[in-house]
Amino acid sequence: MLDFTIQNVLIAVSDDYATVDVQIVDNAIAAISPNLQVVGTAIDGKNKLLLPGFFNAHTHSSEMWQRGMMSVLPLELWLAELFDFAPLDPEQIYLSALGTAVETLLSGGTSVVDHLVLIPGLELETIAIATRAYREVGIRAFIAPLIQDESLSAGIPSGESAQTHEPYFRSTAATLEIIEEAVRQFHRPDEGVNILVAPTGIQLCTDALFAGCIELSDRYNLCRHSHLLETRAQEKLAQQKYGCTAVEHLKRIGYLSDRTTLAHCVWLNDADIAILTKTQSTVVHNPLSNLRLGSGIAPILKYRQAGVNVTFGCDGASSNDSQDLLEAIKIGSILHNVTDSDYQHWITPRQAVEMASLGGAKGLNLVDKLGSLTVGKQADLVLYDLTNLSLLPRTDPIGLLVLGRPSNVVNSAWVNGKQIVADGKVTTINVDGLRQELFNRSQWETKRKSETVAQIEAHYRTVMGL
Amino acid sequence: MLDFTIQNVLIAVSDDYATVDVQIVDNAIAAISPNLQVVGTAIDGKNKLLLPGFFNAHTHSSEMWQRGMMSVLPLELWLAELFDFAPLDPEQIYLSALGTAVETLLSGGTSVVDHLVLIPGLELETIAIATRAYREVGIRAFIAPLIQDESLSAGIPSGESAQTHEPYFRSTAATLEIIEEAVRQFHRPDEGVNILVAPTGIQLCTDALFAGCIELSDRYNLCRHSHLLETRAQEKLAQQKYGCTAVEHLKRIGYLSDRTTLAHCVWLNDADIAILTKTQSTVVHNPLSNLRLGSGIAPILKYRQAGVNVTFGCDGASSNDSQDLLEAIKIGSILHNVTDSDYQHWITPRQAVEMASLGGAKGLNLVDKLGSLTVGKQADLVLYDLTNLSLLPRTDPIGLLVLGRPSNVVNSAWVNGKQIVADGKVTTINVDGLRQELFNRSQWETKRKSETVAQIEAHYRTVMGL
Repeated sequence: MLDFTIQNVLIAVSDDYATVDVQIVDNAIAAISPNLQVVGTAIDGKNKLLLPGFFNAHTHSSEMWQRGMMSVLPLELWLAELFDFAPLDPEQIYLSALGTAVETLLSGGTSVVDHLVLIPGLELETIAIATRAYREVGIRAFIAPLIQDESLSAGIPSGESAQTHEPYFRSTAATLEIIEEAVRQFHRPDEGVNILVAPTGIQLCTDALFAGCIELSDRYNLCRHSHLLETRAQEKLAQQKYGCTAVEHLKRIGYLSDRTTLAHCVWLNDADIAILTKTQSTVVHNPLSNLRLGSGIAPILKYRQAGVNVTFGCDGASSNDSQDLLEAIKIGSILHNVTDSDYQHWITPRQAVEMASLGGAKGLNLVDKLGSLTVGKQADLVLYDLTNLSLLPRTDPIGLLVLGRPSNVVNSAWVNGKQIVADGKVTTINVDGLRQELFNRSQWETKRKSETVAQIEAHYRTVMGL
Repeated sequence: MLDFTIQNVLIAVSDDYATVDVQIVDNAIAAISPNLQVVGTAIDGKNKLLLPGFFNAHTHSSEMWQRGMMSVLPLELWLAELFDFAPLDPEQIYLSALGTAVETLLSGGTSVVDHLVLIPGLELETIAIATRAYREVGIRAFIAPLIQDESLSAGIPSGESAQTHEPYFRSTAATLEIIEEAVRQFHRPDEGVNILVAPTGIQLCTDALFAGCIELSDRYNLCRHSHLLETRAQEKLAQQKYGCTAVEHLKRIGYLSDRTTLAHCVWLNDADIAILTKTQSTVVHNPLSNLRLGSGIAPILKYRQAGVNVTFGCDGASSNDSQDLLEAIKIGSILHNVTDSDYQHWITPRQAVEMASLGGAKGLNLVDKLGSLTVGKQADLVLYDLTNLSLLPRTDPIGLLVLGRPSNVVNSAWVNGKQIVADGKVTTINVDGLRQELFNRSQWETKRKSETVAQIEAHYRTVMGL
């Protein structure tokens, strides 16, 4: 019924391109070869490039409500401001999940890992409505409900002062029950919706929370997600909390695995990197967020040399402030050229494409099903229009896509063989209506001030030696 | 005749926004205030933001022919590859100048500094046809014919080996004659076309060439442009060539001034920075190119603290590989947050906008005429559509514009009061025809190899300790 054949399309082969036909039968890639018989609908691939869909492997969809307006601050203070003004209406969660899906799709992503901030007291409702949004758009969703069991102030190193922190408002057990219930209600991998266990990170989570997540992950076969060593403050905090690095601690408690994706990984040492290699953990690189928050430059070339799997994320739209994957892939590739003078180590555009596709599939334990144009794999595909001005003159299509600044180049996208972008437009939802809703529910604003930032800034500056 | 009034438009005022009308009379800003009488054509500014046009303050338009395909190499080897395949047909120069102008305009730029690579033997023709292209589009053009009088191999430090270099194919005097003739034929500041003196940089120019340029600059009141210390190799070369830094040398020979713009400035020390402050020279920051070529991160926060004027450039499309100014402004702002842990030094979106507009005007000695929304200044203006999905939800318009990843947001642009973008389209040339020409004159290609790179790579690696 939904079978189709893309004709005369460019695909990447070894270090060149080939013009082929691609047959999609029963939602999977059935054949790739020149001059194939048309099965199902014929789609004109002329002057177009077909790639496997990318993964937006780390974001926080509801941050879209605060993009463009967050103060120029490092993570710890930025988080305080973010949380002071977090959206509390499930309808907002719905709209920002739609927006995140649309921007991801129109920049080549067919999968999104949403480290979803939960509305306190409406945790399952938050997960339900985000799930609804992603199902409506049709993007492949990896919903990773963001959980913690320590209060925000615990995430800043105490320095000389002996600080006590308010207990978190919800117990560890109650939090784990929410996640288990979310798994029961929403985890439907065959339908493109996955729930992940996703403690926010060592800075705000007890070992008990991590242990509970590991147990759920093993019992329900769930992928694992977490922030890891995004900032120098977190590096200090780990030493203070555990007397070892955060990576050593996570290894000891058994959180690292071949289905664990770790966002950021900016402040790891060589021994930490060896642990990531050994545990086959995946690094999710969020270059724009790391720059915007001044977190640092993640040692991505070292990861690649050590054989650590790396993929890309946009991170939340309050720290980026976009959900354009092509931007994250470009900057996440070229940024590292300034960290190693030997250009033979630099990331090529083709390598970047593989990181964004196969790298994401590996991290989410789906390498047999997704991430490459391989017969038998599911049809998560993106077709790029190579006649757009931003991709001209014609040179190397992947070079143009990764190193240029393409706009409006995604002609079509399919998830599990279902077309959800056609002629450059998302076909499953009313994007103009979404735009109108986002407009109506917001206002231009420059005057807000975060009270929490005012309270904690002096301590932060002292501890960080500023 | 061309007078117009933009009604109910948002503009930036101190740390807030105001909704005003803006009257343009005789190509200049005549009044800015709420509830003005409509003079000339009324333009609806509702839900739009008006900013002064930005400057794309350093590019090389003809590099557009090789974007997306250049190998992942550092500048010195990259240049060798670039020159091996440089376009030699003036029609190509025309088309890539059009493309550069279009991409600059549609990302908020109303001025472009084209450090124009000249076709050997067709130098004046190259300048003539680029001038024609910019006049046709209507963008304000600063054409800086790229000149040198030493051969390419002289640009790499010799290391231990005593190297001799082939003489450059054209004499210093002949080169200066070309520039003087270009000034006579094409330098028409009142018509929006300016010729600059623009030796490529200390790495490939003799003092005689610099001296000739200074003389022309003084005689014809021309701005001065040059690359400066883009790479570590150039830093080494300057010490080898002069026994001092390149900045000290340029100061000594009198090239630095308040109308001198210097592209890159990655490898300057504190004494060099003090010289830039004292001479009131302008740094043109090309962050994407500096990353792509692994040149380094220019110490932009230090420049700002030292009072050095800084503005942004895209650099040529072979080292970026786009001409989107908003991308350069975003990355050129946030990149520096990782170089200074004190966030109080970080560049805010409003500061970035000022750098891109007023900073450019200062560098090109036009601060009295351009670079801000000031009554009496010339109307180089850009009107942004704030209802585009990439700028929603509504928060802080300038924050969204600078930190987001806006696409298709330029609704209108005027240069010297003449509208050249309307309803998101360039109105002065046939952009679809341009696209077709770029398509027809190119082909997808992955197999080319640079012979010069093969010849010089071993030497480069030795000298750079790789």
